[in-house]
Amino acid sequence: MFTVGILTISDKGSRGEREDLSGQTIREMIGKLPSRVVAFEVVPDEKEIIARTLRDFTDHKKVDLILTTGGTGVSPRDVTPEATRQVLDLEVPGIAEAMREEGRS
Amino acid sequence: MFTVGILTISDKGSRGEREDLSGQTIREMIGKLPSRVVAFEVVPDEKEIIARTLRDFTDHKKVDLILTTGGTGVSPRDVTPEATRQVLDLEVPGIAEAMREEGRS
Amino acid sequence: MFTVGILTISDKGSRGEREDLSGQTIREMIGKLPSRVVAFEVVPDEKEIIARTLRDFTDHKKVDLILTTGGTGVSPRDVTPEATRQVLDLEVPGIAEAMREEGRS
Repeated sequence: MFTVGILTISDKGSRGEREDLSGQTIREMIGKLPSRVVAFEVVPDEKEIIARTLRDFTDHKKVDLILTTGGTGVSPRDVTPEATRQVLDLEVPGIAEAMREEGRS
Repeated sequence: MFTVGILTISDKGSRGEREDLSGQTIREMIGKLPSRVVAFEVVPDEKEIIARTLRDFTDHKKVDLILTTGGTGVSPRDVTPEATRQVLDLEVPGIAEAMREEGRS
Repeated sequence: MFTVGILTISDKGSRGEREDLSGQTIREMIGKLPSRVVAFEVVPDEKEIIARTLRDFTDHKKVDLILTTGGTGVSPRDVTPEATRQVLDLEVPGIAEAMREEGRS
């Protein structure tokens, strides 16, 4: 059994202007795995807020796996990859590659 | 309709010692797309010249998509990736990955 | 005919506490290629030792291709990628990608 944190990055979702359902979809998808969701947050596209929340998930909520969804897509405002990289001890490129490959096929 | 710039990087091509046909081939390939080639240059394998030409394409010629061809291959003189990285605001690793994957298969 | 160096990174193997057979397996695998193994070492998971041995392979033993095996896997002690990057003139991302893709399929 591993613990999971789900982080939705959405300006509109964080202001309650839109219901962002992707975090909810992820929760349903991992329901089949031996996992327990212990953190679930929606934050705006702000680098410092994203990084702080990721650190809170790992350091205080003792999350084993964090799944993020959202972010603006390719634009100067797409800060999710940079915020994530900021809190990493180690980047494993093959994981991102496998995700992108799966997304392409 | 989007605008395209084609940049051939070739020492010999830029000195007129060899006709580098790859830029011409790209022009034909994208002829099927709703695109218009607004810039077409051949430059030598010099980092500063490559970077300056890329900036000219984006800033003055208002090119939406730049396609480069050539560069020396794997050698200390292969400066195209570094010159390209120098002018990027944002690197999207999945695009290069998809190109390389397509090239392998 | 190209020359090959095989480097096994293994704390236990380097202390003789365990026989790490992966280097030997690589030697057998490349036996089918027009290659000659001119260097074969087992070293511990220490960044400086790994980097020094890689430099010895390229600079003194004139190895054309280095194949490494081992390293601890994903952990703070997994220093092989960083040690390797330290001695590179040029990183070719597509080679690592192709290896990981092959490993996934």
